[in-house]
Amino acid sequence: MSHAEVFQITIIGAGTIGLSFAALHLLKHVSHPGLRLVIHDTRSGLEQYVLETLPVYIQCKLTKQEQTEALSYLVAVEDHIHMHELIISSSNLQTAVAEADIVQEQGPENVSFKTLLWPKVEQHCPPNALLWSSTSGIPASIQSADMTDPSRLIVVHPYNPPHVMPLLEIIPSPITDPDVISRTMQFWEVKDMAPIVLRKEPTGFVANRLAFALLREAIHLVREGVTTVKDIDDLMTSSMGPRWAVAGIFKSYHAGGGPSGLEGFFQNIGGTVQACWDDLGQVNVGEGWEGDIFRQTKEAYGIVDIKARDEKTRKVLAAARS
Amino acid sequence: MSHAEVFQITIIGAGTIGLSFAALHLLKHVSHPGLRLVIHDTRSGLEQYVLETLPVYIQCKLTKQEQTEALSYLVAVEDHIHMHELIISSSNLQTAVAEADIVQEQGPENVSFKTLLWPKVEQHCPPNALLWSSTSGIPASIQSADMTDPSRLIVVHPYNPPHVMPLLEIIPSPITDPDVISRTMQFWEVKDMAPIVLRKEPTGFVANRLAFALLREAIHLVREGVTTVKDIDDLMTSSMGPRWAVAGIFKSYHAGGGPSGLEGFFQNIGGTVQACWDDLGQVNVGEGWEGDIFRQTKEAYGIVDIKARDEKTRKVLAAARS
Repeated sequence: MSHAEVFQITIIGAGTIGLSFAALHLLKHVSHPGLRLVIHDTRSGLEQYVLETLPVYIQCKLTKQEQTEALSYLVAVEDHIHMHELIISSSNLQTAVAEADIVQEQGPENVSFKTLLWPKVEQHCPPNALLWSSTSGIPASIQSADMTDPSRLIVVHPYNPPHVMPLLEIIPSPITDPDVISRTMQFWEVKDMAPIVLRKEPTGFVANRLAFALLREAIHLVREGVTTVKDIDDLMTSSMGPRWAVAGIFKSYHAGGGPSGLEGFFQNIGGTVQACWDDLGQVNVGEGWEGDIFRQTKEAYGIVDIKARDEKTRKVLAAARS
Repeated sequence: MSHAEVFQITIIGAGTIGLSFAALHLLKHVSHPGLRLVIHDTRSGLEQYVLETLPVYIQCKLTKQEQTEALSYLVAVEDHIHMHELIISSSNLQTAVAEADIVQEQGPENVSFKTLLWPKVEQHCPPNALLWSSTSGIPASIQSADMTDPSRLIVVHPYNPPHVMPLLEIIPSPITDPDVISRTMQFWEVKDMAPIVLRKEPTGFVANRLAFALLREAIHLVREGVTTVKDIDDLMTSSMGPRWAVAGIFKSYHAGGGPSGLEGFFQNIGGTVQACWDDLGQVNVGEGWEGDIFRQTKEAYGIVDIKARDEKTRKVLAAARS
C-alpha cells in the first residue's frame, strides 16, 4: 500500500466496464483504510459522463438509504466523504497512478495502446502496485512486451457488468510473479466475487470460448431452419440457464449419470454425444447468415432493458447461492 | 377425449423420466375432468418402485398440506381420490392404452423397441389419442416406420427432470399431422411449461446439441491444461448460468452490443469470435481424456444431492420469471 491513510485504485478508461468496476469498488470496499478511487480517461466531458453514469450502476445494488449515502460520494468530487474519495482525472496519467495501490486498465482493445500504456504506468506508479488489464482478448504476455518488469502485469477479465456478475478470469502470463497472482486473488476473494485463475492464456480466455462454442451451434441451427433466434433463447432460459446457474456442466452431467456419475453418463449416451459432435455446425463470421440472425434478434427484442435484466440476474444469483 | 368422465394419460416406461412426467401430470392437472394416470412397465416389483419414488418427486414441489393431499393418490391405487386416479399396470399393454387420451413413451433408447411398440399402441388406443415419445435421440420419422398412420407420432423431449425444468422440445416428423402438433402445444402451454416446436429433426435435437458444443470445448480446455473441471463449473455458475437463466444467448449479445444490438456486438468483437471459432477443440469420445476428467469430477463432487439441486433450481426459475 502506498500510504497508510487510504487505499487507492486508479481506473484507466471510463467506458462501461471501467465505470462498472468503479461502482463495484465503491460498493465492496468496506474495510479500513478508506478508498480513494481515481478515474482517468482523456475523453472530453469526462466529469459529467461519470457523474451521470456511475450513480445508475451504484443505485441498482443498494437500498434507498444506502443509495443516499453512496450518492454523496459523487457530489463531493475531490472531497473526503466517509471513507471514500472519488477523483476524476482527464489529463495527467503520471499523477493519476503516482499513489495507486492498484491500476486497472479498460482502454481500447488494441495492442499498441496497451504496449505503450504499461511502460508509462510502470514508470510512475509505486513499485508494489498491482497492474490489471480488463482486456477480453489481449494476453498479459503481449501487453507487457515493452515493460521493464513484465512480471508485474496480469489480466483480470470480468463477465460484464462486473458490478453484477461475480466471475473474474484471472489470467497471468507465463512470467507473471506468483505474488501478483496471490495478491490479486486475495483482493477479490474477500469481496464475495468468483475469481478463477487460468493456467494458460488461450485465445479469448475461457468464458467467451465456452459461450462462443454454443453460439456457433445456435447460429448453425437457425441457419439450417431447425429453429429461430427467439426459440433458442426461450429454450435456454427454460433449461440450461437455470441448470448452470446452480451447477456447471460437469457437475450437471455427473448428477445425470446415476451412481457412476460422469462415467455413467458417457456409458449411457456417449454415442449420442459423439454423433452430435460429428454433426456440429462450422459457421464463420461473414458467411451471410448475419442478415437474418440480426433481423430476427432485433424483431424479437428491440432495445433490451439492461437495468431490468440486471435486477433479475441479481435475484437469480441470490437464489442460486442461497 | 375417450370419455367424458376422466382424462387418461398412459405412461409407458417407469424409469426416472417416466415417473418425473407422472409427477408433473399429477401436479399440473387441475382442470375438469379428473385425471386417470396409468403407469405401464413390465419390470418386476413395479408397484413398490412407483410408490417409493413418485412421492419424492411430488413432495418437493408442494407445501405440507398439498403433499398430504397428493400422497393420498398413491395409497389409493385403482381407486378414485378427488379428481385423480393412479393405475399401475405391469402386464397388459392393450388394456393400459385402451382408453388413453395421451400415450407417453419413455422406454429403452433403441430403435427396435420403439418401432415394435407404436404399431401395438396404435392398434389398441383410441383413434384420437396423442402419441408422444420422450426419446432424446430417435426421431419420430424413424420410430413411426411400421405404424399404419405414422402422422400420429411426435417427440416430446424433456430437459430432465420434467417435473422441475420447464423446457419441452416438441419435434414432429416431416409428416406429423399439424393437428397433433397444435393439440400437443395446447396441452403444455396452459401448464406453465415452455414447449418449443422444432422445424426439423437434427441429431440430438437442439438443447443437447447446444450443451454438447459447450461440453466439447470445456473438455478441450481441461485437457489442454488451461483450467480444471471444478474451475469450469465455478466459472459457469458465476457467469453464463445466471445470465442465460434471464436471457438466452442471442438476447444477451444483443444487449451487449450497445445501440446497434447484435450487429454492433459482431462489429466490435466479431474478429475475436472468429478467432475463438477457428481455435475450438475437436475432442472425441474415447480419445483418452476420460480418465482425468472423470477423476476430477468425482473428486470434486462425489454423489450429487439432486434434491438440493432441484430445490435451488426452482428458486432460480422463480427469480428469473419474477
